[in-house]
Amino acid sequence: MKIKIGICGYGNLGKGVESEISKNSDMELIAVFTRRNPVESLKISSNVPVVHVNSIAEWKNKIDVMILCGGSANDLPEQGPEIAKHFNTIDSFDNHKKILQYFKAVDNAAKLGNNISIVSIGWDPGLFSLMRMYMGAVIPTGKTYTFWGKGVSQGHSQAIRRIIGVVDAVQYTIPIDSAMEKVRNGENPNLSVREKHTRLCYVVAAEKADRSRIENEIKEMPNYFDEYDTTVIFISAEELKANHSSLPHGGNVIHIGATGSGNKQVIEFSLKLNSNPEFTSSVLLSFARAAFRLSQNGDCGAKTILDIPPALLSPHSIENLMEKLL
Amino acid sequence: MKIKIGICGYGNLGKGVESEISKNSDMELIAVFTRRNPVESLKISSNVPVVHVNSIAEWKNKIDVMILCGGSANDLPEQGPEIAKHFNTIDSFDNHKKILQYFKAVDNAAKLGNNISIVSIGWDPGLFSLMRMYMGAVIPTGKTYTFWGKGVSQGHSQAIRRIIGVVDAVQYTIPIDSAMEKVRNGENPNLSVREKHTRLCYVVAAEKADRSRIENEIKEMPNYFDEYDTTVIFISAEELKANHSSLPHGGNVIHIGATGSGNKQVIEFSLKLNSNPEFTSSVLLSFARAAFRLSQNGDCGAKTILDIPPALLSPHSIENLMEKLL
Repeated sequence: MKIKIGICGYGNLGKGVESEISKNSDMELIAVFTRRNPVESLKISSNVPVVHVNSIAEWKNKIDVMILCGGSANDLPEQGPEIAKHFNTIDSFDNHKKILQYFKAVDNAAKLGNNISIVSIGWDPGLFSLMRMYMGAVIPTGKTYTFWGKGVSQGHSQAIRRIIGVVDAVQYTIPIDSAMEKVRNGENPNLSVREKHTRLCYVVAAEKADRSRIENEIKEMPNYFDEYDTTVIFISAEELKANHSSLPHGGNVIHIGATGSGNKQVIEFSLKLNSNPEFTSSVLLSFARAAFRLSQNGDCGAKTILDIPPALLSPHSIENLMEKLL
Repeated sequence: MKIKIGICGYGNLGKGVESEISKNSDMELIAVFTRRNPVESLKISSNVPVVHVNSIAEWKNKIDVMILCGGSANDLPEQGPEIAKHFNTIDSFDNHKKILQYFKAVDNAAKLGNNISIVSIGWDPGLFSLMRMYMGAVIPTGKTYTFWGKGVSQGHSQAIRRIIGVVDAVQYTIPIDSAMEKVRNGENPNLSVREKHTRLCYVVAAEKADRSRIENEIKEMPNYFDEYDTTVIFISAEELKANHSSLPHGGNVIHIGATGSGNKQVIEFSLKLNSNPEFTSSVLLSFARAAFRLSQNGDCGAKTILDIPPALLSPHSIENLMEKLL
């Protein structure tokens, strides 16, 4: 019997989950839920029902795990707790400052519904959080550095698109190699925001727009760009589409410390992703398996990636894993 | 109240555990257990009792977790199950072919004694096993490669020392960079043993020993060297001591796969260790914390690294971890 998966939200992430389910032979997609009206306006790739999210509770006994693919700003704060009342859920909530508050709201709802909800799954938060935790536990006197990129930051691209005169834009976050090398060499540098990453923006401007005004608005935008060295390059809409349509990303978590009388120890985890949303989707699916198993065992409530026994993610038996991987 | 740690066996690993305990403010060393006779012949760095291993059971109520620092060939197959009857234990059993058999023997004993035993902890088996599992669960259609080194293999060094005419020896396992690059580039190579690693041996020969015979015996030694390109360099005892006394090691686990319509995804974990035994000891200690907590919660039996909820390794509270790391 396969694990029955529902997808709630059909943007890049929802499409990724749909695409990656077939890689997991113990799972099947049951339905896609959307807020669009009419639901018929949403065309999906799979041959499963598209259902309005208002009817989601009616699918309670037909779906084992609901994967919440909405955004952290507007969708999840409401959907997370609401849907956790009815389903085991997995989400990629990434609004760091509100994570504890979100966790508690989902935890209450999941306990009411006797469901498991694993929150903030993906790669950061997600696998990178997990690595930071393992690394810090193993070498407790060490220091952890996280670098992101080279990759497209959708939040920063979106921020540029809101500027008047900008037709479209793609922003790459680029780690500074020399800073990473300093870390790996054990120099324990104190790195400012500017010393860790640069930002590279490809912008399509409206025909008569003032390009120098746009460039300044980008470079001075608080929080997003003002603390970074930012490069702005104006290109045509065709060029943007041809060369900057994919969503690569990745990064490095580096932990460096010493044992004994100063023996340097370096632990590093890195991702090089040609599709950020598809990778995130793959991570969500492996945790859907864990949520299903925890729920089958009678557990309930909200969990994070730090709570989940690793073997629950794998389709293989523990004896098989011991023989093949240990 | 601190977690009370015992060390059983005082070789490189036991010394490493002793050195690293001080980095964990929630732990204290209570005693070191040894097979040496008389026990007074063993001098240790800490100011704690040295006790003969035959009296270990008498310390049952004074120690929370016993860290087994004996070898996998001769010590652990007997000590593991025997000591698990009386104590929570952590070990670094690494005889891959016997791991399931060992696990079952320890599991039975630990359940009899109502104790937790986490087996095969370290970095391989250990953190590398864990990474192989996470990576395979996240991208199930991908392929995982493990490379070791550059580092000293104590087993291979020991094998050379057994050859007649050899006074001392140190063997380095060296990964082949071009093979690693092929993997990272997504070429999905099928690599033979010879194509992944080379072996470099520094050998001190007895004065009148036949060096070409020694070199041949090394290069043709079944299992250890015959499948590798091996280089043998004869040096003086002084040079061996001066340049090859430390025990560095490390390696890379690389998982490569694709999502969607062929988007390449690369996950990599690497270690660069200046002291292999001290790093392994640090890993053992973080799992000692987990064993203690599992035992406090009333759980018992043998576990592997794949069974342990990550947060149990950390001295920090789950709320603190969520705020700082997630």
